[in-house]
Formats: sequence, C-alpha cells, structure tokens
Amino acid sequence: MPRNAPVPRHVDALPTPALVLERSALFHNLDTMSAALPGARLRPHVKAHKCTELARLQHERGHRGFTCATAREVEGMARAGLGDDLLLANESVDPDRLRRLARLDARVTVAVDSRETVRAAAAAGLREVLVDVNVGLPRCGCAPDDAGRIAEFARRAGLEVRGVMGYEGHVVGIPERARREQLCNEAMEKLARAHAAVGGDVISAGGTGTWDCNAVATEIQAGSYLLMDTAYAQLDSPFRQALFAIGTVISVSREPVFAVGDVGLKALGMDHGDSAIDRPAGRVWFFSDEHVTFSPAEGSAPSVGSHIRVAPAHCDPTVAYHERVYLVDGEEVIDAFDVDLRGW
Amino acid sequence: MPRNAPVPRHVDALPTPALVLERSALFHNLDTMSAALPGARLRPHVKAHKCTELARLQHERGHRGFTCATAREVEGMARAGLGDDLLLANESVDPDRLRRLARLDARVTVAVDSRETVRAAAAAGLREVLVDVNVGLPRCGCAPDDAGRIAEFARRAGLEVRGVMGYEGHVVGIPERARREQLCNEAMEKLARAHAAVGGDVISAGGTGTWDCNAVATEIQAGSYLLMDTAYAQLDSPFRQALFAIGTVISVSREPVFAVGDVGLKALGMDHGDSAIDRPAGRVWFFSDEHVTFSPAEGSAPSVGSHIRVAPAHCDPTVAYHERVYLVDGEEVIDAFDVDLRGW
Repeated sequence: MPRNAPVPRHVDALPTPALVLERSALFHNLDTMSAALPGARLRPHVKAHKCTELARLQHERGHRGFTCATAREVEGMARAGLGDDLLLANESVDPDRLRRLARLDARVTVAVDSRETVRAAAAAGLREVLVDVNVGLPRCGCAPDDAGRIAEFARRAGLEVRGVMGYEGHVVGIPERARREQLCNEAMEKLARAHAAVGGDVISAGGTGTWDCNAVATEIQAGSYLLMDTAYAQLDSPFRQALFAIGTVISVSREPVFAVGDVGLKALGMDHGDSAIDRPAGRVWFFSDEHVTFSPAEGSAPSVGSHIRVAPAHCDPTVAYHERVYLVDGEEVIDAFDVDLRGW
Repeated sequence: MPRNAPVPRHVDALPTPALVLERSALFHNLDTMSAALPGARLRPHVKAHKCTELARLQHERGHRGFTCATAREVEGMARAGLGDDLLLANESVDPDRLRRLARLDARVTVAVDSRETVRAAAAAGLREVLVDVNVGLPRCGCAPDDAGRIAEFARRAGLEVRGVMGYEGHVVGIPERARREQLCNEAMEKLARAHAAVGGDVISAGGTGTWDCNAVATEIQAGSYLLMDTAYAQLDSPFRQALFAIGTVISVSREPVFAVGDVGLKALGMDHGDSAIDRPAGRVWFFSDEHVTFSPAEGSAPSVGSHIRVAPAHCDPTVAYHERVYLVDGEEVIDAFDVDLRGW
C-alpha cells in the first residue's frame, strides 16, 4: 500500500501482506520495560522498529536517549524532534554522512573503535563519542585493553569521550537464564575494565535478551522488546508478541492438503529461519518470495480469501521490508505508522 | 542514500551498503538470453529486479511481455509505459487491487487457479486470465485435471482464457542438468495435459534454472538471469554474476583476525543462507543486521575504509531491500536506477 493511502478500519480490509502491531501487547511491552528501566536506564534501539511514531511512544514514557544503527536512523530521529541524545552505536568512516550528523539539530554521539573512526568523527565536526569495546561478539569494538588508548587518542583529537559501549550479542539469545547471566557477567567484566581505563558517565550495553541481567550497564540498548519475535519468545521474558504479518489465503489444495498465503520471504526476515503460522494453527512448509505454503492443523480448513497471521522469526529485518505498520486492537485498525527510518 | 540524491562518479564514493550492477555482466546476460529466447519467447520476471529501468533494457531487446509477482509491479510497469502485455503470475482476491489493475492503460492478464480467483478477476473487470497449474511445486496452481473445468468456469464468467502457466520451481535449483531436465519434462507433461484441456495460445513457465531445457513452454518467465546470485551460479549456466553489494570495512581485529563490513542482513536476502565475500577473498563468519564479519584470506589485510564486494545468495529479496541500484563499469559509476517496484 502506498504511503498516504487511506487506512482501512477493519483488519480484514488491510492490503496484504501487512505488518500489524497488537495494541495490548505493544503497550504491555512499553510499560513493562519503562517500569523496570525508567528514563535514561533504557536507551531504546530504533533499528528494531525503524519508526519515529513508535520511538515517540518510548520518548513519552521518559526514554529521551535512543540507539541507532545507521545514519539514516539518526537523521530521521532528529528530524522528528527526537534528538535529545542520539547514539550511533556503529562505526562509520563516511565523511558525508558524518558531516550531516554533525550538522543536525540534535545531540549526536558516535561509536569509535579505532584511530580511523576517531579521525573521521573529529574531521566531520562531531563532538561526542563512546569507545566501542569487543566484549565477546566478534564484530565491531576494540580489544578491552585498547580502550584507554583510543579514548586518549579521541580526547587529543578534541572529542568528548562520554564512556564505553559493548554489545553482548553472543549472549542475548541463550535460552537458559543461568548460562545467559553467567556469560553476560563475563562480557560485562570486560566492559567494566575498559570503562575503568576510559572514564565517562556512560556504560551502554545490553539487549532484549539481557535487559534484566546486565548489572554493569548504566543504560540498556534493547529494541526488540517492543515488537518481539519467535526467537526472543524462546527466552523467559515478560514481553509479548506484538508484531505479526497478516496475509490472505490465495490458494488451497485438497490432495495433498496445503494452503498458500501471500506472506512471503520478501515480507519477513529469514536469517533466523522460517517464521511461524500463528493463526489459524498450521505448520509452515516453506516460504517463497511472495508466498507461504503451510498445512493447516487438523480440523482447520482455511478458505481462499481468509486471513492468516504469521509471527516473524526476527523482527528487525522483517520491519525493514515494510513501508507501514498498522496498530490494531483485535479486528479494529486504530492507526498506521510509516516505517520512516528504512535504508541507510 | 535518499532517492534523487546525486550519483557519485566513482564506486569508492558510493554510500554503503550499495547495490551495484556490473555493466559488462548485465549486458552479457541481457544479450545472451535475448539471442536464445528472442522477443515473445521470453517474458522476463520483474520480481527479480523490481526496476522499470532494467525492464526497459529488456523491452528494448524485444521482450514486450513481462511477468509480475505483485499488483505494485504491474502498476509500476504500466505507469512506466511498459504495459504491452503484463502477466500477474500470482493469485489475488483483493478487489481494490484487481480493480486498479483493470483500470490501467495496459494489457493485464492474471493467474487464476480456483473459482474464487476467477470470480474476483471477473468482478474487478479484468478481461484476460491464464489458468495456473500445479506442476509439482506445492504452491499456487490447480491440479492438472481441474484446469479444464476452471477454464470453462472462467469463460462462462466472461473472461478470455489465454492459456496456462505452471512454474516448475521445485526443479530450477537442481545442479545436475540431466536430473533437472528430467524433472522439468515431467512437470511440463502435466502442464501440456492441462493446456490440452484449457486451450489458448500461451503456455507460460520456466525460470533461470530451466530456460534452456523447457521444451513445452511457449514463453519462459526467467528473471534472475539478468542479475544472478550464488545459488543460480551453482548451475551450468552462461549467465554471469552482475549484482553485488558493496560495503565499507568499518572495523578490523588482529587477534583473532577478522574484519567487519557494513553490508548486513538488512541489505541481503537470507533465505538461501549467507551471501559470499567476493572481494577481497575471504570467508564469511556471520551476518548481523548491519554487519558482515569475515576472515580475510591469507595475505589480504583489509584496512578500515576499504571496500568489500559481496555476491548475494538470492537476488530477489536482496534487491527488495534497496532503493537504488548503481550501474558500474569497473570503478566508474555510470548510472543509478530506482528500485521503483518494491512493496505490494
């Protein structure tokens, strides 16, 4: 559905595939997290929803700082008036993008983990950085023992070093809580050591898998908690599945018995494997570009034109395929939000 | 990069991640296919590239009919003046979308495989249909023995039945040619049987995996041949990898040795598994939302700021994440095309 298209009132009238957010689950997730990690204790990650309207709901609950993964996310948040304290939790050496960020009417902090990224930030006119530390996930971040030197290099380049960040992404998906806590603690020992060498007020870390077991971070970067997906649903978590993809059954086979819905792999992130048929009960056979083939549960016989509901396996890359997400309350469509932070 | 942003001249100046098309491979693929399947023998599938500028190159080579997977693709093609003969090779019962298609200044044919889809097409004012037949892929399509009845039902509803279509998607990825040909023949026997009952001039089938072994189809619906991906590269095929994702190295680790590029899983289709590092030589460890972690090949030491090139595992869902694709000739950026057929 093109942007600015009228919003149907009833969920059955949505053009499919359509992403929907269940209002009760969404607000449950918002409020549960805000009660546990009020205000600046949470720095919500916008990469999960890529939507300034959803960020505004988080902002209204007192979370004034946000985490971003891309320059586009930072720019969009600033333009939406949500630029109190934006962290680009990612390295960049793109001079054009960094200059654009430096000129925003917003407080922008960027992650650095090398002399090159420090130089790029300083040259662009940015003023504040966090030293990104590798706490066990082999991705960005300097070695903990190098963090002090990078902070010093950044300060000599005229940058304010606000502290450290380090994402324990290798830990957040571990289902057993005890093991998750143990590995989280080990990761955070590294970050605390780096912080001791770096200084500053901020220790930024954590995600939806470790939001309640990370005792070191001054702020938690969780994002997925708001939408949830079948991967995070494996954890013992108070957050409820709010995000679904709605599809229409477009074909039914009687021999063998299967049905086909118009929610395909171009409407779902596939890196965590197949998403799940949530309604009616059924078992996914496979996804194609624009289709899901599934066998309905015994006794259920979906007809052509009926709706299905799919629970995404990974919310972030699912949302990134869609232009809009609809807020629904049961069968009623209450609102439509542009997914306005897509792209880079 | 926002649409309408200026186009850099040099590939190193592209904002990353960026999709690029190698000019020589693209034109090799265009010309190779047009020589083998001239004019109406090929009905290129636009779902692979979702780009009217690329469709125009195919149209200029004499392919006036196109295959589409979504209403948005049909509408975009018609608006671009490429509506000589558009096939929506997919079922729809969405009355609004079908009515919009019926009102286009274009020849539009839609796939039907049930009484419900016939009724929806007729009610919307569409005039031409193909009967979609299940030739072995459990997805859309009626049973071959039902095709005649559905054609009759469609004709009674006032629709012109142009013939049949049936996609042997269960066959197109089989690496061994002999086995692929055999299963393709078996699938096409079903389609030929259905066609005998349906009538009409059109037998539409095939894809990049079976374009040269499908002896029954009057027209082949190949799309990926133009861009290619690492999955189709497994086949003995004359088509060359034209599509790549360019990224920038943003972090390097010395112990252990790995590098991180800014081409993540939100820039790549992941249903066929991990895409491959193409340049410099290297081995992918894993993709995250905005990152690829890889180990460079012995002797190669990518530096922060250097470029990497990734060969996508599946072109269709990769393109669907991007707003633009850049045409490049070596290091030179020649043109930029909007990916203007995204969404539904």
